[in-house]
Amino acid sequence: MGLGPDFHGVFPYLVSPIDDSGKVKEGVLARLVDDLIRAGVHGLTPLGSTGEFAYLDRTQRRRIVEVVVQAAAGRVPVVAGVAATTTADATAQAKEYAALGADGILAILEAYFPIPEDGVVAYFTAVATASDLPVVLYTNPQFQRSDLTLTAIARLADVPNVRYIKDASSDTGRLLSIMNAVGDRIRVFSASAHIPACVMLIGGVGWMAGPACLIPRQSVMLYDLCRAGRWADAMALQRTMWRLNRAFAKFNLAACIKGGLEIQGYDVGAPLPPQAPIDAAGRAEIETILATVREGASAIGS
Amino acid sequence: MGLGPDFHGVFPYLVSPIDDSGKVKEGVLARLVDDLIRAGVHGLTPLGSTGEFAYLDRTQRRRIVEVVVQAAAGRVPVVAGVAATTTADATAQAKEYAALGADGILAILEAYFPIPEDGVVAYFTAVATASDLPVVLYTNPQFQRSDLTLTAIARLADVPNVRYIKDASSDTGRLLSIMNAVGDRIRVFSASAHIPACVMLIGGVGWMAGPACLIPRQSVMLYDLCRAGRWADAMALQRTMWRLNRAFAKFNLAACIKGGLEIQGYDVGAPLPPQAPIDAAGRAEIETILATVREGASAIGS
Amino acid sequence: MGLGPDFHGVFPYLVSPIDDSGKVKEGVLARLVDDLIRAGVHGLTPLGSTGEFAYLDRTQRRRIVEVVVQAAAGRVPVVAGVAATTTADATAQAKEYAALGADGILAILEAYFPIPEDGVVAYFTAVATASDLPVVLYTNPQFQRSDLTLTAIARLADVPNVRYIKDASSDTGRLLSIMNAVGDRIRVFSASAHIPACVMLIGGVGWMAGPACLIPRQSVMLYDLCRAGRWADAMALQRTMWRLNRAFAKFNLAACIKGGLEIQGYDVGAPLPPQAPIDAAGRAEIETILATVREGASAIGS
Amino acid sequence: MGLGPDFHGVFPYLVSPIDDSGKVKEGVLARLVDDLIRAGVHGLTPLGSTGEFAYLDRTQRRRIVEVVVQAAAGRVPVVAGVAATTTADATAQAKEYAALGADGILAILEAYFPIPEDGVVAYFTAVATASDLPVVLYTNPQFQRSDLTLTAIARLADVPNVRYIKDASSDTGRLLSIMNAVGDRIRVFSASAHIPACVMLIGGVGWMAGPACLIPRQSVMLYDLCRAGRWADAMALQRTMWRLNRAFAKFNLAACIKGGLEIQGYDVGAPLPPQAPIDAAGRAEIETILATVREGASAIGS
Repeated sequence: MGLGPDFHGVFPYLVSPIDDSGKVKEGVLARLVDDLIRAGVHGLTPLGSTGEFAYLDRTQRRRIVEVVVQAAAGRVPVVAGVAATTTADATAQAKEYAALGADGILAILEAYFPIPEDGVVAYFTAVATASDLPVVLYTNPQFQRSDLTLTAIARLADVPNVRYIKDASSDTGRLLSIMNAVGDRIRVFSASAHIPACVMLIGGVGWMAGPACLIPRQSVMLYDLCRAGRWADAMALQRTMWRLNRAFAKFNLAACIKGGLEIQGYDVGAPLPPQAPIDAAGRAEIETILATVREGASAIGS
Repeated sequence: MGLGPDFHGVFPYLVSPIDDSGKVKEGVLARLVDDLIRAGVHGLTPLGSTGEFAYLDRTQRRRIVEVVVQAAAGRVPVVAGVAATTTADATAQAKEYAALGADGILAILEAYFPIPEDGVVAYFTAVATASDLPVVLYTNPQFQRSDLTLTAIARLADVPNVRYIKDASSDTGRLLSIMNAVGDRIRVFSASAHIPACVMLIGGVGWMAGPACLIPRQSVMLYDLCRAGRWADAMALQRTMWRLNRAFAKFNLAACIKGGLEIQGYDVGAPLPPQAPIDAAGRAEIETILATVREGASAIGS
Repeated sequence: MGLGPDFHGVFPYLVSPIDDSGKVKEGVLARLVDDLIRAGVHGLTPLGSTGEFAYLDRTQRRRIVEVVVQAAAGRVPVVAGVAATTTADATAQAKEYAALGADGILAILEAYFPIPEDGVVAYFTAVATASDLPVVLYTNPQFQRSDLTLTAIARLADVPNVRYIKDASSDTGRLLSIMNAVGDRIRVFSASAHIPACVMLIGGVGWMAGPACLIPRQSVMLYDLCRAGRWADAMALQRTMWRLNRAFAKFNLAACIKGGLEIQGYDVGAPLPPQAPIDAAGRAEIETILATVREGASAIGS
Repeated sequence: MGLGPDFHGVFPYLVSPIDDSGKVKEGVLARLVDDLIRAGVHGLTPLGSTGEFAYLDRTQRRRIVEVVVQAAAGRVPVVAGVAATTTADATAQAKEYAALGADGILAILEAYFPIPEDGVVAYFTAVATASDLPVVLYTNPQFQRSDLTLTAIARLADVPNVRYIKDASSDTGRLLSIMNAVGDRIRVFSASAHIPACVMLIGGVGWMAGPACLIPRQSVMLYDLCRAGRWADAMALQRTMWRLNRAFAKFNLAACIKGGLEIQGYDVGAPLPPQAPIDAAGRAEIETILATVREGASAIGS
């Protein structure tokens, strides 16, 4: 199709494993990518919030995208995060990631001073125009100093390759307002701040978020149950999985997912200082939740 | 049953029609009550936010409850709003409304200075203990200066007649966290800031809000579709109904519902000054939405 | 003078002593009024934030004003707080307090739903027009759900008896912007959230706040030093007094001042539940600060 | 002196002139530096908020510092802004600017996820330890996603070369609380959100802010009047100068100062997109204010 690939399903927001000297830990990242694909995820998203994009320099970011694209080897689409305060920086990143073989762009506007709506629209339009890859708009009002208004989203829906949005506010009603405003022109992915089953119910196409790194099979199972209209089973699974989303929100996001992956045997290390790794109590809490989710999923069977 | 009536379904938040001299317009209020019951609503809630409890004095509030209880005549339960800054005032209101024949209490904590959790729990416990009616906790972080934490809710779940909550934050995930924390001890009603179909999906028992005054039949239809597990039809209806919820949020709540009722032939008057009535453009917007909802509902048929 | 009395200097925001049955403790309130006047304060303000206006009913409020007016006996002006959500209630209060002999009105807009600027201006204009007493606008964005914009203040400056403002934001620059906008038409009183010496420097006319109940002599000394241009001495005193303002902000305002007055031998009781009285640690902290302020003041001598 | 230079007085926050290709416009920056020094300013601060540090890459930042140090040529101290999300990046910047000849470091913590107090203290301590230059802590709660608590500031006061703070909240009382907590160990500079004359009154040592680029002589005059205890004259000047601070807050900071400098004949260009330059109406407003300030200053004479 002229509009490129059709993104849907579970896209884990990948962590960015960095060693003490600042080098990307390529082996562990490639292994994580491979394992997630084998677990059935539908795509991968390096350099989202969980991927600590805000803590990495240009070289580290580039290398992360490169490693993920190579490890994915075309099996699932890779949607790379582009984030900048300036239009020039953002468009350069988008071109770079397209050249490295990314299949889509997750577009983020970082801001220090507030930007009026015209500037916001101009920024995202420039990112979209920088390549012909499909673009996922990403707005996280909790951590970013800019937000996308409904009218800005409606204007961006006219840019042909702006085709998805991930809105990480906790206001699920806002997602339905977006759908009412832009119809099929922009598809909605759930973030962890929403209940993914609810977002699927109202017309969402999947889930993009960090926790799927830790529970990929169960995330895919939830997605399949929703698609099959098996809502009661979906909710039974969702109820336990929700505990992980809330832990994710309570702890530093990167610390939570990196800690969980360490529990699962991935040597991804700690988030970059001055961020702190998750402490022993938090680690125990994550461990308990992961066990509960596994039990919950096997209770549902298939 | 020892725990009293089982509240569920659609509970319109009634407006409070007041004439220029400050008297309750009893005739129009009684007619509205009667019409809503004939339209199939499951209960009635005078003195919620939409009911302008914050703008009425003691005498007006009391008369509102009296008129609604008499007009309902036992056909559906009446859950009356109790709101105060002091425990003494709140418990006096609760006793008064119980004596007037209310079937439940919607408990609201008004605050000027912040209140620590112990004080919040003490207040709601005192309201519950003031009568043996079932209590609906009501928290609206957008307009009230206090909020209910998850631990406060969990503590209040131990008070036998605290049995429901209506949380008017827009954070639907918070409702699932409440359900995960308190199980069946406290049942959740959707507010207008949530998508009612989503709240029903995750385990909610109904919808308490102002817009149901304007679209009672369609609200009941939505509730029935959800209960029947007809989620696709429910969402088709929900999608158009959502436009009313958003208008409700955009305008002053009381002005929106009073304006909509005036359109429908109820002479409920304007919200109390310095609140302003809805203007001509807003009125036209409401009119269009109401027509769209009616069409949406008949398209689904039954 | 046609415009009535000239308010300036130190106006303690009086506490409202209420016994367990809800009756005003008239004796202790009258004694506090008398002692404050003997300590040199320039006026008295019952029913401000510290006076728990938001926790008292109509009868209690009326009695508070009555007792204060009688005890003051014309020695200093009494500026009584009028606070309501509706225009009708506010104007009734203003007329009532004027009839009781108050010398000025402190006008407060309580709100549940947001009020557009036209409504805000209409409310305060109605309060001013209800009597011919001078009006002090009072805005406290921390606790009230409405705020006064600079343009609303400028519009209100055209109402002849709107002559003062007390802005309890912590943004001192906003006070200078108000002065730049309205010149002499509206005079500015400092709140406790500002450094009174700074407000005097930029052109303020005094200080209206709860802490002056506890340190009336030192507050008057600070005012006199500022008026005399003895800024170095003023700041030496201000530095220690500031500790009380910060304790006042940290604790519940009413609890802090009531607790401090109890230490000083006034049996004013606790703030109304569910507010909590200050605990032992807080009481000790207040006690230490009061001793430090007394020492600081005597070090400056005169 | 062992503790290095004594910073005080007026430190303009310099703009960062960048051409369309991303190159630093060195000539105009050097000329601005020279003119400001001739106008009497006491120091210079490249890479503050006004300097768009958040919009510049590593190379641009480095070149800005280099050009300013060379143009200042030791006549006044240069305090260079260090800002990063990671400790590693921040310490590298600090070392680099020290090597380039900067005389002090303005330390800024950028954050995406919230950082607990221990992490905040560790970050600033690391920046301070990276060189032996005096450090100015800079916190701007309006634009930065981290803030410095009073206890964090008190802990940082124990780091020998942490010697100044610029707090850009609008809460002037907070500055007095800082002074009460840390005494002479940390000196306070006013930001534009405070009234500089008030900060001088309470014990501040000067003013660090963008507007001083546009009115350097008048800023120095204000500082001198405050130092001389000529408070009435200081306030007469301050009153008009305040209008510029408020315009600065109303517009995008960089756009305001760059626009004002363009009016004054400095070809500094526009802020980096998607930031917008100031529009014609804003430019006219700035022009009027600058004329008023010049008149105000000459009225005071000397």
